Amino acid sequence: MEKENDQPEVPLGPDGKPLSKKALKKQQKDAEKAAKKAQRQAQQAAEADTQVTEDFSKDRYGNMAMLQSTEKPDRRLVRVEELTPSLAGETVWVRARMHTSRAKGKQCFLVLRQQQFNVQALAFVNDKTVSKQMVKFAANITKESIIDVEGVVQKVAQPVESCTQRDVELHVERVFVVSASAPQLPLQLDDAARPEHDEEDASRPRVNQDTRLDNRIIDLRTTTNQAVYRVVAGVCDLFRATLTGKGFVEIHTPKIISAASEGGANVFTVSYFKNNAYLAQSPQLYKQMAIAADFEKVFTVGAVFRAEDSNTHRHLTEFVGLDLEMAFNYHYHEVLDVIGDMFVHIFKGLRDRYKTEINTIQKQYPSEPFKFLEPSLRLEFPEAVTMLREAGVEIGDEDDLSTPDEKLLGKLVKAKYDTDFFILDKFPLAVRPFYTMPDPNNPKYANSYDMYMRGEEILSGAQRIHDPEFLTERAKAHEIDIEKIKSYIDSFRYGCPPHGGGGIGMERVVMLYLGLTNIRKTSMFPRDPKRLTP
Amino acid sequence: MEKENDQPEVPLGPDGKPLSKKALKKQQKDAEKAAKKAQRQAQQAAEADTQVTEDFSKDRYGNMAMLQSTEKPDRRLVRVEELTPSLAGETVWVRARMHTSRAKGKQCFLVLRQQQFNVQALAFVNDKTVSKQMVKFAANITKESIIDVEGVVQKVAQPVESCTQRDVELHVERVFVVSASAPQLPLQLDDAARPEHDEEDASRPRVNQDTRLDNRIIDLRTTTNQAVYRVVAGVCDLFRATLTGKGFVEIHTPKIISAASEGGANVFTVSYFKNNAYLAQSPQLYKQMAIAADFEKVFTVGAVFRAEDSNTHRHLTEFVGLDLEMAFNYHYHEVLDVIGDMFVHIFKGLRDRYKTEINTIQKQYPSEPFKFLEPSLRLEFPEAVTMLREAGVEIGDEDDLSTPDEKLLGKLVKAKYDTDFFILDKFPLAVRPFYTMPDPNNPKYANSYDMYMRGEEILSGAQRIHDPEFLTERAKAHEIDIEKIKSYIDSFRYGCPPHGGGGIGMERVVMLYLGLTNIRKTSMFPRDPKRLTP
Repeated sequence: MEKENDQPEVPLGPDGKPLSKKALKKQQKDAEKAAKKAQRQAQQAAEADTQVTEDFSKDRYGNMAMLQSTEKPDRRLVRVEELTPSLAGETVWVRARMHTSRAKGKQCFLVLRQQQFNVQALAFVNDKTVSKQMVKFAANITKESIIDVEGVVQKVAQPVESCTQRDVELHVERVFVVSASAPQLPLQLDDAARPEHDEEDASRPRVNQDTRLDNRIIDLRTTTNQAVYRVVAGVCDLFRATLTGKGFVEIHTPKIISAASEGGANVFTVSYFKNNAYLAQSPQLYKQMAIAADFEKVFTVGAVFRAEDSNTHRHLTEFVGLDLEMAFNYHYHEVLDVIGDMFVHIFKGLRDRYKTEINTIQKQYPSEPFKFLEPSLRLEFPEAVTMLREAGVEIGDEDDLSTPDEKLLGKLVKAKYDTDFFILDKFPLAVRPFYTMPDPNNPKYANSYDMYMRGEEILSGAQRIHDPEFLTERAKAHEIDIEKIKSYIDSFRYGCPPHGGGGIGMERVVMLYLGLTNIRKTSMFPRDPKRLTP
Repeated sequence: MEKENDQPEVPLGPDGKPLSKKALKKQQKDAEKAAKKAQRQAQQAAEADTQVTEDFSKDRYGNMAMLQSTEKPDRRLVRVEELTPSLAGETVWVRARMHTSRAKGKQCFLVLRQQQFNVQALAFVNDKTVSKQMVKFAANITKESIIDVEGVVQKVAQPVESCTQRDVELHVERVFVVSASAPQLPLQLDDAARPEHDEEDASRPRVNQDTRLDNRIIDLRTTTNQAVYRVVAGVCDLFRATLTGKGFVEIHTPKIISAASEGGANVFTVSYFKNNAYLAQSPQLYKQMAIAADFEKVFTVGAVFRAEDSNTHRHLTEFVGLDLEMAFNYHYHEVLDVIGDMFVHIFKGLRDRYKTEINTIQKQYPSEPFKFLEPSLRLEFPEAVTMLREAGVEIGDEDDLSTPDEKLLGKLVKAKYDTDFFILDKFPLAVRPFYTMPDPNNPKYANSYDMYMRGEEILSGAQRIHDPEFLTERAKAHEIDIEKIKSYIDSFRYGCPPHGGGGIGMERVVMLYLGLTNIRKTSMFPRDPKRLTP
């Protein structure tokens, strides 16, 4: 059987040179118009045909009525990923997207797509089952329509390089449209799935971020996005499973709060009946209350809100926080051990369980595989300062790390230790919040840490002060109005174990693990200062 | 060894009759004052003592310095639940709450509490290790302080009925206060843990709901609440695990949205930079978009907001939604099968894995064990109408069920089918949202269902309309402004499989499974029109 040509065609202008973006756009529009016209004509022709010659396939194709749950047929739908040579010769039903179709004389090549998988199908005119009209009908089904196809699975002589199911194709016997797509798509899936930095393919259209996000339901259909959001689900699942296995209890903390939890800045205000309320910037207070309330080890996964007017590659106004907090016995390094070990579990879980997804994503967004050590590498702040100074950075002992410092440090650590993940312990006390426990051995430092992936911070945490008197003293030193944080301080008046924890930005973990460059690629419906839709 | 007397004492006035609530309160205050005075005196006496006779135990007790992670001692802390006769004769360290203490001459009885478990401990004066001063110190440790106790595990002749660890007690050798509680507690744990309807014990103080919630970190320490919030975690875990096992993908949907998703009423407004935004009343739109985006089966667990001024036992302004949505092949009963089966998994999982927790909760809040059938019972709306009419209720064929109707129906179904859970299918179309798919066989009804536990609705769902033209038609029939829901309708223009789903109120499921009477008992930090704190 003839194999579909999957060589990419570079669109050329009448002068033989590759077209400009603008020209491409125009061309695309024209093509869509033409397609629409062709579809109309084909339909008319098909109708005319049936008036002339009896269509022996007429019950074998068509548009289904809206599926309203009228019947419960005893028909099994086979998954596209199940289509392998082991089914060769069998007749199967498949429901999938019409990814592309191309008519060639008496034949029509289709690509059927289902999530991360696709298969080539072929309708060709014969004497008994597939009429000319039926092939025309198949050729005119709009891209992205959902169709039911009955076909015979056939092994192919040469692998179909453009499809995930390379060793088979489907010979169409029946085809029905379950849900038709509008003929004009706001973006083309093939454009959306094209690698961003492919020199050979540079002239072909890409889809920019805003067009993607404006038409998110189509953009999310790319095999890459199908894979990305499975990795997102994987990170959350691994986070919870690891901690549940260590005796943590999942809690749910309120998002509407009566007072701005982390100071008044960057907080969204909500109208709450006749009063004002705020959206929680973190579950910090509630996690700590759960510890004071004897839950010992808790985690929570939920929306976190920051009214920050930051329009960067790594800031969102609403994101998913993976937060944990635990009582420890003697030393906050017990907490560091748990978190470090948890990340190792997550990284291993992703590597082992999400191989298919990671490979799919790599095709569009190539990156170096994520490296980590077991146990996780732990450095102390002064070591980082030394490394940065050796690399020429001017930095004081008690200065916080800037974003470029972090990036550089990530590179230096990678070069020296061969890991993309590390823990930086013992931050200067001066750059941490008032509730951070100071280092007992050196009052300039704190029992406080950040964690990094590929040189970007993904977790911030510390031993918290559990003594109400000392907490008051430290708040005063930070010139915080004690009255405003009274209820927080009071949480520690009835006995509270020493404890520590951290908060993780879920979208950042996925972005950095996959080596992606924008957090909007790992948030299904991202929110930033300029985007509230869809 | 003498056993602590655990008979409840009914407080009597000078006239020999049980005290009134007010009198009890006064008595409690007096007792607290007296206790404080006694503590001062005891401390002074202890100090005086040490000046007279050398205290041979002086290194064996005391207040620890604030634990600042100075050391990493090689000391194992044994869990209270591990204290069983198998450890008899062994010396162990335990960190726990001082639940109660009572001095009796040269002895002091302590109850040490750790989450759902407690154990009796005994400090008694001897010649070598435990001095008079040490016993006094132990007796004066404030309730709810966190203490480290070293002691020898001893089998007891008679079971200690008041403790979970009935067969052993701990003979104290050392005792240190890790974190002291203030001497006056805003509520007594024993009062908070008392069964609400115990006739014999009716005169003893209870703690009302608002006092509990105002002092939530103490209220949450009761063994009952320790168990309740483990069941909460269990429901979420079982929901996710069951659906993940069935091929569902977890998604995260935005809480801040640009337009009120389910109509303008009952929605909270948020200031979003220079504009207004809203808090999502459900993830409905986003779940459906994920289906249109080929994820096929999705679930999401997250905060849901309702600005409803309802002050009832079952309404919250913020709650945890367990939402799911799935494409189906031919009939929405495929969705009902999945959801019905999922609930069976949840109920079985709770019954089998949370036996300890359920038993603990039953002690304070007794209820009939939750009954369910496998497969889940499914009734059609007209059957429910017939049952209600036979029971004397006047209800039209297309009327919605009122809350009392639901309660009664729950009782009738329980009597007839012996199940506390059932699915009611085929609701009248007139009482369902515009996006609900009508029944193809009878246009008065819809492919739409509710599910009930103990006669209260916990899930509402339906086959959704996936055809944009028909959706527009139905929206017009509901007199909805098409312009305002344009982006929703447009989600279905590029091919969408038939699909259905439902939304579950997590707190309701836990409340009704456990037979509790107020939803504030299953929300760790509940939000209602009158409560935004803690």
